Amino acid sequence: MPRLADPVIHLGMLLAAIKINGFPCKANISADDFFFAGLRNPGNTNNPAGSVVTAANVEKFPGVNTLGVSIARIDYAPGGQNPPHTHPRATEIIFVLEGTLEVGFITTANKLFTKIVNKGDVFVFPRGLVHFQQNRGHGPAAVVAAFNSQLQGTQAIAMTLFGATPPVSSDILAKAFRIDNGEVDAIKAKFAPK
Amino acid sequence: MPRLADPVIHLGMLLAAIKINGFPCKANISADDFFFAGLRNPGNTNNPAGSVVTAANVEKFPGVNTLGVSIARIDYAPGGQNPPHTHPRATEIIFVLEGTLEVGFITTANKLFTKIVNKGDVFVFPRGLVHFQQNRGHGPAAVVAAFNSQLQGTQAIAMTLFGATPPVSSDILAKAFRIDNGEVDAIKAKFAPK
Amino acid sequence: MPRLADPVIHLGMLLAAIKINGFPCKANISADDFFFAGLRNPGNTNNPAGSVVTAANVEKFPGVNTLGVSIARIDYAPGGQNPPHTHPRATEIIFVLEGTLEVGFITTANKLFTKIVNKGDVFVFPRGLVHFQQNRGHGPAAVVAAFNSQLQGTQAIAMTLFGATPPVSSDILAKAFRIDNGEVDAIKAKFAPK
Amino acid sequence: MPRLADPVIHLGMLLAAIKINGFPCKANISADDFFFAGLRNPGNTNNPAGSVVTAANVEKFPGVNTLGVSIARIDYAPGGQNPPHTHPRATEIIFVLEGTLEVGFITTANKLFTKIVNKGDVFVFPRGLVHFQQNRGHGPAAVVAAFNSQLQGTQAIAMTLFGATPPVSSDILAKAFRIDNGEVDAIKAKFAPK
Amino acid sequence: MPRLADPVIHLGMLLAAIKINGFPCKANISADDFFFAGLRNPGNTNNPAGSVVTAANVEKFPGVNTLGVSIARIDYAPGGQNPPHTHPRATEIIFVLEGTLEVGFITTANKLFTKIVNKGDVFVFPRGLVHFQQNRGHGPAAVVAAFNSQLQGTQAIAMTLFGATPPVSSDILAKAFRIDNGEVDAIKAKFAPK
Amino acid sequence: MPRLADPVIHLGMLLAAIKINGFPCKANISADDFFFAGLRNPGNTNNPAGSVVTAANVEKFPGVNTLGVSIARIDYAPGGQNPPHTHPRATEIIFVLEGTLEVGFITTANKLFTKIVNKGDVFVFPRGLVHFQQNRGHGPAAVVAAFNSQLQGTQAIAMTLFGATPPVSSDILAKAFRIDNGEVDAIKAKFAPK
Repeated sequence: MPRLADPVIHLGMLLAAIKINGFPCKANISADDFFFAGLRNPGNTNNPAGSVVTAANVEKFPGVNTLGVSIARIDYAPGGQNPPHTHPRATEIIFVLEGTLEVGFITTANKLFTKIVNKGDVFVFPRGLVHFQQNRGHGPAAVVAAFNSQLQGTQAIAMTLFGATPPVSSDILAKAFRIDNGEVDAIKAKFAPK
Repeated sequence: MPRLADPVIHLGMLLAAIKINGFPCKANISADDFFFAGLRNPGNTNNPAGSVVTAANVEKFPGVNTLGVSIARIDYAPGGQNPPHTHPRATEIIFVLEGTLEVGFITTANKLFTKIVNKGDVFVFPRGLVHFQQNRGHGPAAVVAAFNSQLQGTQAIAMTLFGATPPVSSDILAKAFRIDNGEVDAIKAKFAPK
Repeated sequence: MPRLADPVIHLGMLLAAIKINGFPCKANISADDFFFAGLRNPGNTNNPAGSVVTAANVEKFPGVNTLGVSIARIDYAPGGQNPPHTHPRATEIIFVLEGTLEVGFITTANKLFTKIVNKGDVFVFPRGLVHFQQNRGHGPAAVVAAFNSQLQGTQAIAMTLFGATPPVSSDILAKAFRIDNGEVDAIKAKFAPK
Repeated sequence: MPRLADPVIHLGMLLAAIKINGFPCKANISADDFFFAGLRNPGNTNNPAGSVVTAANVEKFPGVNTLGVSIARIDYAPGGQNPPHTHPRATEIIFVLEGTLEVGFITTANKLFTKIVNKGDVFVFPRGLVHFQQNRGHGPAAVVAAFNSQLQGTQAIAMTLFGATPPVSSDILAKAFRIDNGEVDAIKAKFAPK
Repeated sequence: MPRLADPVIHLGMLLAAIKINGFPCKANISADDFFFAGLRNPGNTNNPAGSVVTAANVEKFPGVNTLGVSIARIDYAPGGQNPPHTHPRATEIIFVLEGTLEVGFITTANKLFTKIVNKGDVFVFPRGLVHFQQNRGHGPAAVVAAFNSQLQGTQAIAMTLFGATPPVSSDILAKAFRIDNGEVDAIKAKFAPK
Repeated sequence: MPRLADPVIHLGMLLAAIKINGFPCKANISADDFFFAGLRNPGNTNNPAGSVVTAANVEKFPGVNTLGVSIARIDYAPGGQNPPHTHPRATEIIFVLEGTLEVGFITTANKLFTKIVNKGDVFVFPRGLVHFQQNRGHGPAAVVAAFNSQLQGTQAIAMTLFGATPPVSSDILAKAFRIDNGEVDAIKAKFAPK
């Protein structure tokens, strides 16, 4: 058997024809494969939530394949919100780059833990729990978020339930939220795929 | 050092004074420690959801401590629902004991996978994803649900967001669901702790 | 790089040309991939053990690939036995569907833990330990068994030692069981591949 | 919070009053805690199997706690046997110190893989599978065996089934091995605790 | 058994009298337990390396216990260096807060991957490999570093080898670095504990 | 789907066209795939370190793929040294085949644990920590080393820092070791690739 060029790298990206975890591997790697410039600038927060997540996970940054980490920056317009969501496969830890945010998560015993955080502060959201951030300052806010997974996955709760394709039956959502079908349909209209 | 009575058991429950993962261990174990009779009978479904989960996880069934599995039975009145929820720490696989259920989960790409299942059918809900079951038959329904965790944890989405203690700010929920504060408060009233 | 259809699913079954853990992945998945109907009916127990395991692991039910769980139903004729065996890669938890069974496992300190279980009862067999079930009632019995592995593997002890291909040397088995070679050969004859 | 003396060590053995995984930790550790002299000499093979395992796992060698490895030496008289057994929690890899052994394991598809090994040879037994070694030379034999677990656990098949306390019912063993109760009882007599 | 207040939290910090992984748990937790303010300000870089790591791992930030992540900020004076080091238990991913750094790591095939990174850039250092950062700009530099471990551990190579207590024998270091004992002793003098 | 020949083996080496973890799998396996004869004889220690590591990891011994273990023998001329190094992915446990060695490791708190070991002794080096062995006897020495990884990886510290390709900048090494650039270049010359 030919001697492998580099065992450590090999595990992640040996040959172009090989995929590991379904992600492509490369024959000739360089330092650029471990580098990502896509978080330099704030993302565009001109959307209904007033917030945007710019991800550097294995889909965008293949170099983290097999390494068990990924990172993102999240930008928030004043009043902007990263709405309640979960990451099925990761704990998240944030560092505030600028601004003032209300952050929180809810436990499996239905307790809310919430806190106002400012530039330089750190907060951790345990694996799998529903959590959110909301810009409570007068200017833009931004955080760096790190995950102990190369592909944390995200389920934004309202979009997941009211914007799925095909849609979740309205009677299921009506019973779940204890509202009527008309109210469900009104929310669904807000999350309909464009 | 004294010879340990039983290494395998030892890992879970050596001494009464010891806790592993915070759960008590026992000095004298018997077959009863690996046995649980609490799922024999249907649970009481006389509640707003028309459904009840009877759990045999490490809180109720200490014998599964360190073993990486737990089990539950879920009973559903006609029309009853196990509302959309997540398990932060486990995949779930169900076997239908009786009845006809609509089951489904939503992926991180916001696709709904839904199916009608009947007695003897199996369905699997991947780790951490939002999922639900609804009784679509005319009589009671029941499933056995197994988890690859001794303590899967559960977040019922509507209760988590609208029934937390202390409450999640109404403006956060209003923005998230794109409804107004009054609508949020009306839903919160339905989930208020009694 | 093209945007992945669905990261969660992707991990298990992205493309038909890709195998993960050696199992095929699919390009177009549907709810049916997470569904398995093969446990609806009792298996045929007309065999020497009077028992049959119908498995829904990744070989039969590819949808559990990467999900860390699998399930099976086990049927037992009156007096039927799921003979002493191990699962090299999983803890097993059973729920009794019907009948009365003697179940047991032996620890690494050579202690037997055994129990009579009935409809609706739960019992757990720790990872890797020798265990068995025997129908002690007058009618058929059945259980649902869940595993924290997509492919638990099974070694039925007597078949493994006395029915292997090629055969284990008789002198090795004679010494191990402290019987003579003729007795070994008599047992081997019972387990010979047909 | 006081600064910890040494995080790496701390994980294994911080304070005498603390147990991790149920094993005692020490306040003052030295190089001796990572050292074990108990494998220097051959063990006594004067027993029915003609073989003895001298273990250096976490019960005997607490320094491996949390480190995920252990080691043993196995000595064999001429004709001696380490009888068919499993390790529920570890793969085993052996290096032959002296002598000539027949080694083998059986897969979950009931295939036997067997080989004659000599001084300096290496053989690996996959996690959880039934395996054995038998001295096929004219003099003593010995191996060093390493495990990827601090406490691999062992179930010697014949002793597990025929020598358990309390005993496994003879009718269960008779049906499993397709012999009669009298033959079972004869084997049990050989493995009865003294 | 009393109902646990909160299973998720419970795993990390149930009772003050309990330690998990040797770290103390708390009976009454609040959002402050998941919050850390100690990274707000640059650390003091007035030291021989011209660099300082301010850690928020489980020793300083107990809230990350069991959560599998930690974070740090690293500040660099002009010309300052985070010297070649390893983390035995974690991959590291950095986000540049300000300045211009040369960063690099060496693989197990002895290849150096190095890159100049600037504000907003991301770079990843695979688990366990020797890596470094050096301020190549004219002003101060700073990064946020995240780890997929609650306690990554650090071995600064030169300090580890030349500043250990008790010291590593000079002849061992001389042979390793192919220098003479006098040169070793001169380096040791620079790293002697004060 | 065709029935798999053998699930356990399948995980490691099902088909020649498949790679798992990037390593080739085979269609027809035999006992030889689990056997390795390459450690029978001492390696050639005629090199500057006076020591040689003969590895039986997944690169040389494909049968350990997915099994989580590997093994090596290390031979030392009198005065020979296995220089300070780390294994990014494994704990190492050694058994001394012959000779007298000084072995040691340094913790993340910069404490050296060192010990003289002789034939038959065991010593363990915790995952990721810098460690070394030096022959302190008058004749050759040898150990068997086992790892809880199929590919432990090795970074020999001096070679990693002073012999990388391309080279680490001399000013970085000078600052790290608190020596001048000339001294760095002199060491580099000793480790230059031939």
